Amino acid sequence: MKIALVGIGKIAVDQHVPAIAGGPDWELAATVSRSGKVDGVEAFTSIEDMLSARPDIGTVSLCLPPVPRFQAAQAALLAGRHVMLEKPPGATLAEVHILHDLARAQGVSLFATWHSRCAHGVASAKAWLADRTIREGRVIWREDVRKWHPGQDWIFEAGGMGVFDPGINATSILTEILPMPIYLTGAEIDIPGNRQAPIAARLQFSGNITADFDFREQGPQTWDMEFVTDGGHLALRNGGNKLEIDGKAVEGDDKILGAEYPTLYAQMAQLIGEKRCDVDLSPMVLVADAFTLGRRNTVEDFEF
Amino acid sequence: MKIALVGIGKIAVDQHVPAIAGGPDWELAATVSRSGKVDGVEAFTSIEDMLSARPDIGTVSLCLPPVPRFQAAQAALLAGRHVMLEKPPGATLAEVHILHDLARAQGVSLFATWHSRCAHGVASAKAWLADRTIREGRVIWREDVRKWHPGQDWIFEAGGMGVFDPGINATSILTEILPMPIYLTGAEIDIPGNRQAPIAARLQFSGNITADFDFREQGPQTWDMEFVTDGGHLALRNGGNKLEIDGKAVEGDDKILGAEYPTLYAQMAQLIGEKRCDVDLSPMVLVADAFTLGRRNTVEDFEF
Repeated sequence: MKIALVGIGKIAVDQHVPAIAGGPDWELAATVSRSGKVDGVEAFTSIEDMLSARPDIGTVSLCLPPVPRFQAAQAALLAGRHVMLEKPPGATLAEVHILHDLARAQGVSLFATWHSRCAHGVASAKAWLADRTIREGRVIWREDVRKWHPGQDWIFEAGGMGVFDPGINATSILTEILPMPIYLTGAEIDIPGNRQAPIAARLQFSGNITADFDFREQGPQTWDMEFVTDGGHLALRNGGNKLEIDGKAVEGDDKILGAEYPTLYAQMAQLIGEKRCDVDLSPMVLVADAFTLGRRNTVEDFEF
Repeated sequence: MKIALVGIGKIAVDQHVPAIAGGPDWELAATVSRSGKVDGVEAFTSIEDMLSARPDIGTVSLCLPPVPRFQAAQAALLAGRHVMLEKPPGATLAEVHILHDLARAQGVSLFATWHSRCAHGVASAKAWLADRTIREGRVIWREDVRKWHPGQDWIFEAGGMGVFDPGINATSILTEILPMPIYLTGAEIDIPGNRQAPIAARLQFSGNITADFDFREQGPQTWDMEFVTDGGHLALRNGGNKLEIDGKAVEGDDKILGAEYPTLYAQMAQLIGEKRCDVDLSPMVLVADAFTLGRRNTVEDFEF
């Protein structure tokens, strides 16, 4: 199946292009980007131009930042194309509800992807937790924004989500693996004086679960969660890619982002085959709730 | 049917008690409040005590501030009671999803009420707009917080929602009457330096619709919305209670909060009869989106 990739930035080059090229389902038939291109692939600068020039392309994958993503998704759905959304699926919850209704009305597939849910240890962690009672949980998601989002000022603009851009990967895993639903009971959000979006956040959820998100980690990078249950201790490390039970590694390793994107593209092909949508907003609801409920602190200015 | 009222503050005394007393469906059988009471009605200070002492009370109506509301609602649903929630239905979206799932599992009715949707002019406004195209819309919701929420510090705490406490009345009407769904495209939020929740906000929605919410209005109070359509001009004034078409009053008047609460209690009785829930989160989604997407300004300190 032919697919177009919209938004040729870091994540597209690092993950989407190799995942499309490496799998059996997809042919990268066009790109849309203000400046980015992929060698040997027809390049457009406007999605409207691409949609009208290439009716043979049935699916569009969007890797734009969240704020401009809605217009592109809406245009593709109105043109009858299947659409795959990078996380977060939009700048607001309401716009994703609108896209979901539009996809259903058009009879096409919409996939709000959460790549971290495809990390190596996630399915096994979910199965292990399913029949246990969680007594306490701790999420630590600390990374260096200069390394992972170099110069990406949009991430600190209003709607860019700041540290919740990686943090939503944690909430996407949490909402996938926990045997019970959770809700936010309190949050502290640190926003640099010269920015609009948070650089750090500390969250408290029901079920005695906490999360510590920080964009200022210059030492070892940490994307871990640990749970104490009535039947032992589970740790999911390296962004969901390494599973430990009672302190022993049982699955995955320390490699980053192994098969996440190839799995997403295989899932998209399957959704289209089954004529289904997959739009789970629960990871983003927890983030919107943190913005709504959180106490705000102004912290030191941040420059890349 | 017997009903218990939880949270005997200003809104309970002003609206809920008279609405329950004035209708044919309900008998106020108990209250739960730290200090408030209603003459002649058994008073409890803990909801757990009330639920175990009064199994004859089948329905609980919650008028607590949003932050403590979840625990009370969960306790009542777990005890098999029908539950009616003041607006907003919770401090977070996730907790209301959990309550909704719990109500369905328990086979009881949960009603997330939006009293402004019951204002006199709302149903007629919705019918008039249904087959018209909106070119432009403007919401002005400006009131004096000292008059309507005297000394209620919780409203300016994190999770108290600030000016979105009245503003969500506007979004509850908007999401009810508009012929198309809307989403937020931008927001500016003003937060007093000594508070956590906004005192004013200016919102931009899709469809060329704007909203101006302000808690500092000391002159005439304004709860208006105006729409320019391809088939004339509609204004809904006084919090939805007065409808004007092309500048002429056609329904309702300048009285405040006429039959809103009696209508809600009649609707609750009907939901129980039909064994249904009514949990529409769209007004609150627009507010959570404003907190997520909005640019924040620090403004002058506020004291009651």
